[in-house]
Order: sequence, then structure tokens, then C-alpha cells
Amino acid sequence: MQNFTSVKDVKHLQNLVNKAQNFKIKSMITNKLDNHKTLGLLFFNPSLRTRLSTEKAAKNLGINVIILNANDGWKLEFEDGAIMNLDKAEHVKEAAAVLSQYCDILGVRSFPTLTDKAKDYADFVLNKFIEYATVPIVSLESAIRHPLQSLADLVTIKEHQKTAKPKVVLTWAPHPKALPQAVANSFSEWVLAAEYDLTIVCPKGFELNPAFTDGATISNNQETAFEGADFIYAKNWSSWKNYGQTLYPNESWMINSAKMALTNNAFFMHCLPVRRNIVVSDSVLDSPNSLVIEQANNRTFAAQAVLSEILNHQ
Amino acid sequence: MQNFTSVKDVKHLQNLVNKAQNFKIKSMITNKLDNHKTLGLLFFNPSLRTRLSTEKAAKNLGINVIILNANDGWKLEFEDGAIMNLDKAEHVKEAAAVLSQYCDILGVRSFPTLTDKAKDYADFVLNKFIEYATVPIVSLESAIRHPLQSLADLVTIKEHQKTAKPKVVLTWAPHPKALPQAVANSFSEWVLAAEYDLTIVCPKGFELNPAFTDGATISNNQETAFEGADFIYAKNWSSWKNYGQTLYPNESWMINSAKMALTNNAFFMHCLPVRRNIVVSDSVLDSPNSLVIEQANNRTFAAQAVLSEILNHQ
Amino acid sequence: MQNFTSVKDVKHLQNLVNKAQNFKIKSMITNKLDNHKTLGLLFFNPSLRTRLSTEKAAKNLGINVIILNANDGWKLEFEDGAIMNLDKAEHVKEAAAVLSQYCDILGVRSFPTLTDKAKDYADFVLNKFIEYATVPIVSLESAIRHPLQSLADLVTIKEHQKTAKPKVVLTWAPHPKALPQAVANSFSEWVLAAEYDLTIVCPKGFELNPAFTDGATISNNQETAFEGADFIYAKNWSSWKNYGQTLYPNESWMINSAKMALTNNAFFMHCLPVRRNIVVSDSVLDSPNSLVIEQANNRTFAAQAVLSEILNHQ
Repeated sequence: MQNFTSVKDVKHLQNLVNKAQNFKIKSMITNKLDNHKTLGLLFFNPSLRTRLSTEKAAKNLGINVIILNANDGWKLEFEDGAIMNLDKAEHVKEAAAVLSQYCDILGVRSFPTLTDKAKDYADFVLNKFIEYATVPIVSLESAIRHPLQSLADLVTIKEHQKTAKPKVVLTWAPHPKALPQAVANSFSEWVLAAEYDLTIVCPKGFELNPAFTDGATISNNQETAFEGADFIYAKNWSSWKNYGQTLYPNESWMINSAKMALTNNAFFMHCLPVRRNIVVSDSVLDSPNSLVIEQANNRTFAAQAVLSEILNHQ
Repeated sequence: MQNFTSVKDVKHLQNLVNKAQNFKIKSMITNKLDNHKTLGLLFFNPSLRTRLSTEKAAKNLGINVIILNANDGWKLEFEDGAIMNLDKAEHVKEAAAVLSQYCDILGVRSFPTLTDKAKDYADFVLNKFIEYATVPIVSLESAIRHPLQSLADLVTIKEHQKTAKPKVVLTWAPHPKALPQAVANSFSEWVLAAEYDLTIVCPKGFELNPAFTDGATISNNQETAFEGADFIYAKNWSSWKNYGQTLYPNESWMINSAKMALTNNAFFMHCLPVRRNIVVSDSVLDSPNSLVIEQANNRTFAAQAVLSEILNHQ
Repeated sequence: MQNFTSVKDVKHLQNLVNKAQNFKIKSMITNKLDNHKTLGLLFFNPSLRTRLSTEKAAKNLGINVIILNANDGWKLEFEDGAIMNLDKAEHVKEAAAVLSQYCDILGVRSFPTLTDKAKDYADFVLNKFIEYATVPIVSLESAIRHPLQSLADLVTIKEHQKTAKPKVVLTWAPHPKALPQAVANSFSEWVLAAEYDLTIVCPKGFELNPAFTDGATISNNQETAFEGADFIYAKNWSSWKNYGQTLYPNESWMINSAKMALTNNAFFMHCLPVRRNIVVSDSVLDSPNSLVIEQANNRTFAAQAVLSEILNHQ
């Protein structure tokens, strides 16, 4: 694996899922093989779970971690040919090349603008780093994808699925802020690549970009969609069509026990952080069917599998 | 030891003090025994000495350290049943459970409000983490106690005491800001548990919560209190009775050479940071009797003893 | 070596350059010799390259790194005898002494005020740490020098020089902000100590402090200065004479291909970050003669050589 930015970078999906599961059983299996390697984590947006789990994954592998918070006053110029007379002190050309001197792998987190659809869907920041870095790039959530989350989600589904082809439902849920489509886009791509039965349900006008959902059943009726579901994956996202537009309040889309009762005793999933009693009721989140903490736990082993794969361990 | 939040969590106080002293002599004694462990340090309030000394203690033990600054935009909801439609993006239930996946021990620092006495003295934040985390919790200073400081203070006293039961005086000192009672409460608890002779002296109305000082002599006369003292421990705190109220300026309570002359050639102690010529005069702080730097040094070995104890080393 | 604050702290300059080059060939040569040591990096001003390269250098040597950002609310008092009743909570006397308990070496970064010439040129902050710390101090760029950068620059020159005594030209270049003289002062000192042929060219009134440039040819004519140059080192600095004054815009001083054509096919150097098309044109920076990325790379090995030297490795 060269870079890790979407499911398309993965040659053998099931092997990667298995690798993550193996690290979960024995996380230190390759410990100290890589203790001369350095992983640089570059955050243009804040992170909690992603930073901690990736840091832990690296340390499990014996890899040193160096962290950069770009919003600590490090403003990068991304445009070619710019005359840099304003507040941006460094061009991504130098930044990516220099970081490639200090690091063996670079992780990059960069959220969308939610205003410039073309720039966001070109995954501008991530791709500039891929262009100018000379080391592998791992997405720590880009403008349009969150592949480390999706891999952890697949591991979690695999651990709990009772049939070979479970019914997985990705449902839009309410949120007071306009959020990226990244988690939902990515979850759809990965679940489809794993050949599960995927239904995506959302209010009219909140359908995701079809490039990510081709093969899924798309619905606007939450109750019908939940029928017979084995996994309910809740997430808010802002509109792709009316780009960045949000819809709030809308309590009718919150996941609650009555809706979960329509399913095939489904597991509940969410990438966290989650707003209780807005996205999902306490009763669902605190039920034994909730997998949210296990998803967070699996983030470590997903990251470990990806780092290990990039460093060519078998 | 399960959690470390007060002297009550310690079974054999002298053993823990001895353990810290042994680490001081040979800090690496257990190095690399724990190099698959991770310590998470969670700061709701800033820290210098505590972070550095705990980080160093962990590294001495070969434990990986992960640091979270909660005020980097991570706002937690602590109320049960909250409808999370405002600025708090995550509930402590998920936060503590997720951090327990990534860390083997969690350190938590959280200062008091100094306005809500009941909430502060319930040690709200610390206890929510104890309730929802599934790993041991170490207090890095809570609303009402600072046990890692107190353990380091006991080590320092033990290193310098000339008699079995020295006279220890905890004296209120001036400060321009309203400060927590945590260091003073905790120092009193630990010194009493160590069965030293403790006098606490402060202006009228600044008496500490008796729950922490039962067994100490309480006085409002600084000069009388200093007579025959072997150790003078200076600290400002705001009023417990008139909760959070402060008293400033009041130069008459500053520790100076004339007052130290009343003592039995006492050592001077303070937890730092200290405001020179407000809390204590240059002449006292720069005298050979000042132990403040040694106290700071002993923070490392106190933390190392606690971490080691929690991980069950003998 | 006791401290590392200027070229004057270096006994055998060529040995240190060689040592850095050896680490570049085999960076882990002394790995794990120092894994009980702690390096504290103390930033009064932000840093990217310096932090990352020094952190990496330390980890290559197996040294633990602890980082402090002083502007995260840690305000130090530097004046002797101060009555600390304002916003500064700790005196440098305690700060330096305490950090010396936790760290075996301290790195300090502190920029100039650019308003108080006497204080800046006394290198006030760095020297207070040297005065009160009990461990060696490494300058991570002070008010007037940047020796880790200069050592990396010498390594880079050595790697690319074609003659024993190449002509090195340090040229002033435009910049929209008033910048320190530290990089330029230091580069001049080190290049002169290495006994290269140094020309410094700048607009009238921007001559550096002669204490740093004695032995260099000083010129105000950029085109003449470039003739026959083997290395062009570009850098902006504010005026030393009219202290802190800047001069902008002034496109005529930007380095471009036409000017580089006047040289002896010179290499182009800059310490980064660099403002493209203000300091230097894209055409020069993207040309094969640009060494800027290699300079950044050599920062690691320069820092590693210095840390190793301080810890007395041979």
C-alpha cells in the first residue's frame, strides 16, 4: 500500500480487516520492528479519537510520533505561483517536502469548507500533500472521506455479524451544526466494497454524492428502512446537493428505542462524538446493543493495520 | 491501589513514601517493565510541574504517555439525561469509556469553580471520570485535593526532618488572585495521616473545611504559630466559609526572614509557582532553608511510586 | 561542550560538522545509549522545523523529549527583586531550577522584541536560563543567533562545495514583516569561523552588527556581490542600525533567475519558511540548484551532533 486515503487504496480488503483483528488479539505482535521510524500527524482540524488511536497504534508498532497542529499559527499557501505577501508564511511545496525529511509516514487531517463544493470534492489539501510529499500519506479524515474510521467500522461489524451478508442501514440523524459528509461517504464506500447489503436513509435533499453510494438502496423513509436491519449506523451530514445546507431541528429523525424495535434486534453504531438525545436517545446509546465504544476501541487496531501495511509487514 | 485521589486510597502510607525515595535513588529500577502500557493525561486546567513530572515518571517506568488538553476545544457534557443541543459535543460517559480503551491509567486535572461550593466539594469532574472510566484514575489535582503534591511534600519532609514528630506549620499567605483550597486541604490530610504535629494558621474566616483538618491545631496568629516550627509550608487559598472570597492586599501575612527567625530554624516549603515578594520574600526563598526546588524534584518520584503501585509492582 | 548558544561554544568546528555528517549516514549509531535522558524544549515563540528536527534528533539518540509552550499561559517574571503582584505567576529562578530537575538538557527558543535593542542584544531570556538552570542550555534560536540552523547550513555547504574556500554570499531579501537578525548574524559567524569567503550584501542602513560580521566583505550592490558566487544564502532581516525598522515593498532585491545567472552556477540556500515570489522567485526555488530542503533535512543531524556532543559521546 502506498497511500491510505480511500478503500480504493486497499488491495485485499478482507486481509486488512483480518490484520486489524489480529492486532486486537495481540497488539504488540510487531513491536519494536519499526522503532527507527517516525510518523508525523498533521492536523488542520482538531482531533481526539483519531489522534489518540493513531498515536497508540504507532507506539504499539514502536514508531515514534511527532504531532503538528496547523492552527497553532502555521498558515500554508496552497496555490501555485502565489505571490506570498499576505499572512501565509510557507508554501505546501516546502512544507510537504520538509516534513518528508523528518517523517517516514505523514498523516493529514483536513475538513471541508462546506462552502466550496468543487474544492472540497477535489480533496484539495490532502491531494496537495500527496503531490508534494515524498513519503506515504495517510488520511486522518479528509474533506470527503474518513477511511480509518470506516476500517474500524468494518472490523466492528465483522465481530458482531450473525450472517454472511447482514443488512446494514446508514441513517441520517439530526444535529445542530452543519457537518461534513466524510464519514457517511466513506462508510458507504467501505460497506459496499465489503459486499454487505447497504441501505442509506435520509431526508429528501440529503442524498449523498452517488459516486460513493452506487450499489446501495437509497430511501427517504426511516421506518421502512429500519425493518429487518442488523446494524443501524447513525450519522448527521449536511446536504451535498444544496451544498453545506443543514436541517435542524428535526426530532423526528432521532434514533430511539421505538425505531430500534423495528429492526432485527440491530446493533447501534456511531463514530463519536455523539450528542445524546439529539442524534440518539440515552435508551439506545446505553443499551447492550450499542457498539460505539467498541468502534472507538477498534480505531487503534485499524490504524495499526494500515501503518503496518504501509511499512510492508506481512 | 485502585484509584489515587486522596490519602484514603493509600493502604500503607510509609511504604509509598519509601517507594518514592527508592525511585529517587534509582529511578529506572523498573524501567521497561511497562512499555506496553499507556498513561493518558487529561487536563481540564493547565499544568506545568504536574505534567512534566508525571510524564517523566511514566517514561522512567517505560510507560507511553498521551496528553489531552480539554480546553483545546473539547467541551464535555457531565449532566445525565442532557439534551445536547448546545456547544458540548461529547458526554463524559463516552469520553471516559473511550479513553479507557486507549489508556491503562487516566490522570485527570480539574480545578474548582470557586463559586459552586457543593459541586466543587463533591469533586464533580473527577468523580464522573471514576464513575464512567474502566481504568484506574489518578488525580492530577482535583477541585479539592492535590495528592501527588502532598506525597512529594511528605517525601521532602522525611528527607529533612530531624525528629520523629516535627512541628509542621501550614500558613496562609497573600496572593492577588482567588485560589483553590486543594493544595492546603490535601497537605493537611497527608501530614495528619503521617502523624506529624500540624498547625494551620490563617486569617479569621479562612479556616479550611474541618473534614480535612481534624487533628490539626488551628490558629489565627501567625507569629505564635511559627514558634518552634520545623517546617513552614506557605500557601494561599480563598475562603471555604465565604466560598471563593479572597483577601488582598495583606502584606502582613507574607513570609519573611523576621518571621522565619521565630521558628526552630525551619525549612521553607511551597508547591510552586510562587509569587516572590507577595507570598514570600526573596530572602527566604533564596535562603539555604528553602526546599521548594527539592519539592518539585520529588514530584517525579511521587508520581512514579503511585503509577508503579497502581500497576502492582513491588 | 557545556552550552550551545553560538559558534564560540564549539571547540572543534570541523569535528562537529563531521559528526553531523556521520549521523546523516547512520543516524541511529548511538541509539538507546541515552534512553534515560530527558530533553526539555521550551518555546517562548512558535517553531516548526526546529521542534521537529530537534525532537527527531533526540529520539534518534534514544532521548525522551518533553515540550513546553510558554505561550500556553505560562508567564515568567525575569526581573530580580520583582514584587510579583501582576500577571506573571512564576520567576525564571524557580522555572529554570525546576526544569533542571526534570530535564538533562534544556532547549530554549526566544525571539527578540525588535524594539529594545539593548535587551535583545544582551540575549536576555536565553542568558537568564543559562544563569539559573543547572543543566546545559541549547539555543533553539535566541534574540540574536540561531546556531542549530547555522550548523545545518555548514553541513549543507560542505556537502556541495567544489573548492576549499567557496565564495558564499549572504544576501538581504524582501519580506512584508520586520524579522529578527538572528539567522543572518549566526550564519555570518559560522561561515567566518569555517574560514569561507563571505560577502554580505544588503540595502544601505541594513548592515548587520559588526560584532558578527568582522572578516566579511560588506556590500550594498547585489549584482556585483553575486558575481562568481558559489552559494547564495537569502534572508530578510530588519535594520540593526534603525533598530527593527523594515523596508517593504522592494521587489528589486528579490532573488530571481537573472541574478542567479550572474553567479558561478551557485547553489541557492534559505532557512525556510520562505515566501515565494517575494524573497525568491519560483524559478530559483524549484531549480535543481536549490538546497533548501536539504538544509531542513540537515537540521536533524546538526541537532543530533550537538546533543550527542553535550552528552559527551565521541
